[in-house]
Amino acid sequence: MALKDIQNDVEKWTSQWKPQYWQPHEILARLTEEVGELAREVNHIWGPKKKKSTEETNELSQEMADVLFTICCLANSQKIDLDTAWKKMIQKYEERDKNRYEKK
Amino acid sequence: MALKDIQNDVEKWTSQWKPQYWQPHEILARLTEEVGELAREVNHIWGPKKKKSTEETNELSQEMADVLFTICCLANSQKIDLDTAWKKMIQKYEERDKNRYEKK
Amino acid sequence: MALKDIQNDVEKWTSQWKPQYWQPHEILARLTEEVGELAREVNHIWGPKKKKSTEETNELSQEMADVLFTICCLANSQKIDLDTAWKKMIQKYEERDKNRYEKK
Amino acid sequence: MALKDIQNDVEKWTSQWKPQYWQPHEILARLTEEVGELAREVNHIWGPKKKKSTEETNELSQEMADVLFTICCLANSQKIDLDTAWKKMIQKYEERDKNRYEKK
Repeated sequence: MALKDIQNDVEKWTSQWKPQYWQPHEILARLTEEVGELAREVNHIWGPKKKKSTEETNELSQEMADVLFTICCLANSQKIDLDTAWKKMIQKYEERDKNRYEKK
Repeated sequence: MALKDIQNDVEKWTSQWKPQYWQPHEILARLTEEVGELAREVNHIWGPKKKKSTEETNELSQEMADVLFTICCLANSQKIDLDTAWKKMIQKYEERDKNRYEKK
Repeated sequence: MALKDIQNDVEKWTSQWKPQYWQPHEILARLTEEVGELAREVNHIWGPKKKKSTEETNELSQEMADVLFTICCLANSQKIDLDTAWKKMIQKYEERDKNRYEKK
Repeated sequence: MALKDIQNDVEKWTSQWKPQYWQPHEILARLTEEVGELAREVNHIWGPKKKKSTEETNELSQEMADVLFTICCLANSQKIDLDTAWKKMIQKYEERDKNRYEKK
């Protein structure tokens, strides 16, 4: 699936609700909530309680998809093309981070 | 660009560093930092100081790309295919959220 | 209650567990989770669904206390005195933020 | 310093601005930003780059105080007494978490 496709999935899915997109601060709060759920999974799998299992890695990937979904909501609501943003960022990383970490 | 492509971009980009991927908790901390930077932009554009401009919408899209990048790092480090995760999530949303918000 | 008292509450409460304090990254992940729960409450009370009630303001204050608790865990585990940190910060704010926002 | 005192510090400090407190979603976004800065410090001190120093532990405690400050802003803006919230939470923890982690 392309970034455009997942943005389209979100556009289509949200088109049934009213309003289609929440306000930016509301979407951000939802993002904070989703990242919090991802954090809980990380602690479950690699944290002090360490009860790793296939089921939990599955949960982890679902929390990551939820974060993606929320990012797409914010992007769509602001007519931001993530594809363009991604290419710009990769280019920026290549210039800015060139000598940042230890090379192999 | 496909989700697989952006995961490949990250794989290629990180392959030059040692270690290639940080520990999950370290990547999560980075994600928390990136979401914090996105939050700052949201407050800059729609918050109490409201100084919206084209430049800042650009910043916003870059912070969103940084969040995507960090999610890809966590996914790659755990051999998680975001494409599969996405499809599963959309299916889950379709079932779980059917009657959640006000319909048009 | 003094900041010292709440740090003592946490010290006493955690002293029954083994280990008494998690690793910093693990506590940070918990903090991210707690802030996520606070975000959910903010969206419940002031967000798109707006179903404010006394009960929910109560939930809100409990999520805030959970955030405080987690901050105390990190502080205690690193022998950080929040009282000292607070005084330093207020002083810093007084200098740095003097002309930052619109004055009355 | 008591929790009431730090809430008073914040009340006094913010009383010079207009508006005195931002909207809840705006304060939450600021909290997300502050937790992000704390996360960056955690990665600096215990993360992949590990360059711990006295200076950085100092930075850490300042980021924690910033989180406290933001929590107080939200509390004050909603007339929430953190002292009461704290006592309620400790009581809740004592009941709910009794058998949650490994005891010594």
